[in-house]
Amino acid sequence: MSNDRATLIEVGPRDGLQNEPGELPLAVKQQLVEDLAGAGLTVIEAGSFVNPKWVPQMADSEALFAAMTRKAGVRYTALTPNLRGFERALTAGADEVAVFAAASESFSQKNINCSITESLARFQPVMAAAAAAGMPVRGYVSCVLGCPYEGTVAPAAVAQVTGDLLELGCYEVSLGDTIGTGTAGGMRALLAELLGAFNAAQLAVHCHDTYGQALANILAAVDRGIRRIDASVAGLGGCPYAPGASGNVATEDVVYLLEGLGLDTGVDLDRLIAAGKRISDFLGRPGGSKVARARSGG
Amino acid sequence: MSNDRATLIEVGPRDGLQNEPGELPLAVKQQLVEDLAGAGLTVIEAGSFVNPKWVPQMADSEALFAAMTRKAGVRYTALTPNLRGFERALTAGADEVAVFAAASESFSQKNINCSITESLARFQPVMAAAAAAGMPVRGYVSCVLGCPYEGTVAPAAVAQVTGDLLELGCYEVSLGDTIGTGTAGGMRALLAELLGAFNAAQLAVHCHDTYGQALANILAAVDRGIRRIDASVAGLGGCPYAPGASGNVATEDVVYLLEGLGLDTGVDLDRLIAAGKRISDFLGRPGGSKVARARSGG
Repeated sequence: MSNDRATLIEVGPRDGLQNEPGELPLAVKQQLVEDLAGAGLTVIEAGSFVNPKWVPQMADSEALFAAMTRKAGVRYTALTPNLRGFERALTAGADEVAVFAAASESFSQKNINCSITESLARFQPVMAAAAAAGMPVRGYVSCVLGCPYEGTVAPAAVAQVTGDLLELGCYEVSLGDTIGTGTAGGMRALLAELLGAFNAAQLAVHCHDTYGQALANILAAVDRGIRRIDASVAGLGGCPYAPGASGNVATEDVVYLLEGLGLDTGVDLDRLIAAGKRISDFLGRPGGSKVARARSGG
Repeated sequence: MSNDRATLIEVGPRDGLQNEPGELPLAVKQQLVEDLAGAGLTVIEAGSFVNPKWVPQMADSEALFAAMTRKAGVRYTALTPNLRGFERALTAGADEVAVFAAASESFSQKNINCSITESLARFQPVMAAAAAAGMPVRGYVSCVLGCPYEGTVAPAAVAQVTGDLLELGCYEVSLGDTIGTGTAGGMRALLAELLGAFNAAQLAVHCHDTYGQALANILAAVDRGIRRIDASVAGLGGCPYAPGASGNVATEDVVYLLEGLGLDTGVDLDRLIAAGKRISDFLGRPGGSKVARARSGG
């Protein structure tokens, strides 16, 4: 696998901090985003343009996009659930936006209060506006390896919504193991289904470490040709719907795995660990990366 | 992989508790061993017959073997570094013993104060006595994916000491990633070397989770046909020589991985989680299994 490359999609500033209790000062977020770019991450989900009534942690996304120093070659992305959000992201200067749907009907209903089909219909104006603006759109699919309400989720259901998002115009779909119950065996079964219909280059994985399986699941995906992996520095955040969620897999630990497989990530692990330490210190708790803990002697 | 089986070698009562600060009451150890057998584990490393001056935590191994109720079909094993230890284990009624060597010369010198060759020579009387008594002997090799003093360890060095132990009469060699720096890539390279010379059935893996890589490394080993995996309930213990070691991989998390791959472990995960919770409660700290934490709602 030498000379092969893999790309980390750093979701800490958005998916991570969104699930942290309390709101952070803008300067702290800005520092985090700039630290992450400095560590060599090339895709950073910096914010979310959603109704601040629902996600107050992200109310300052415009201000963040305006304040942060951008590094050449880095894509600063944002989550945009609807046309109003998309227009805000466009004005703020996001390089890419993301929409999200679920592979489980119950999760869609409880999480975003509409069916999967309705959620896809709502994205159509976003996709049209993005196409007109030349803005790439990423799709997230949640519950690909399990649902807190339905339990098992059929690979065919994931294939259906993945295909729908790609057809709507998403350039890539990120497969989210939202509650972290997935196993390497489940990931293999899922990818066996998906890779019959789509290319590995159209897929990313977003594994939660709630059951400690994230790196094994990522390994299973990398073995099947997946080269785009979502992760969150210091394991920031998680899913509020998963009981006891340790949540997002730590970017540091994923980088360690990928580099050990001979995949070039372009990330400077020491600088990434420093970025994770700075935000964890600010949050006043130990970071969630085992690599960071081991490297710093405990 | 359906209908395939995998065997967990539970090392918590010995390798785990040996590295816990302080000595535990005999009744607590007995409860732990009996809980583990009750959960379906069939190989349990219950104690160690070493000089109590060096490992006071294991001074009561005779008493433990005498006190515990044995379950049919379970092998209760013990670590025996020398002939005196072997004789004690034999008298105590151990079903199997284990000897240990390092793949790294520096680690051997600093850990057991002799060269690798000298350590193997010291085992010869143990092997002879074990053969005479019809007692199976397991070999441990430490530092197979990295050494705290030498850094990288060549697969050829691991193959050498593995071959030596098998030739001495060990029925199996457990490959220890003592400091947990190994990656799935490293495990694959190691097994590519070893499986050129030995059968998968002669090998086990003993992965530490210090860098969070244990499950990915175990997956890499299982993919190459390894079906015997060391683990420690609740992630008890670790290696005192590894800075910041979170140490042993939690048996609960390994069972979850293996069952997810369609491998039958024979372990009742709920009972195993309960066993881990009981000993962790006694130790007064949260267990190290993410599966246990997730299942118990945080």
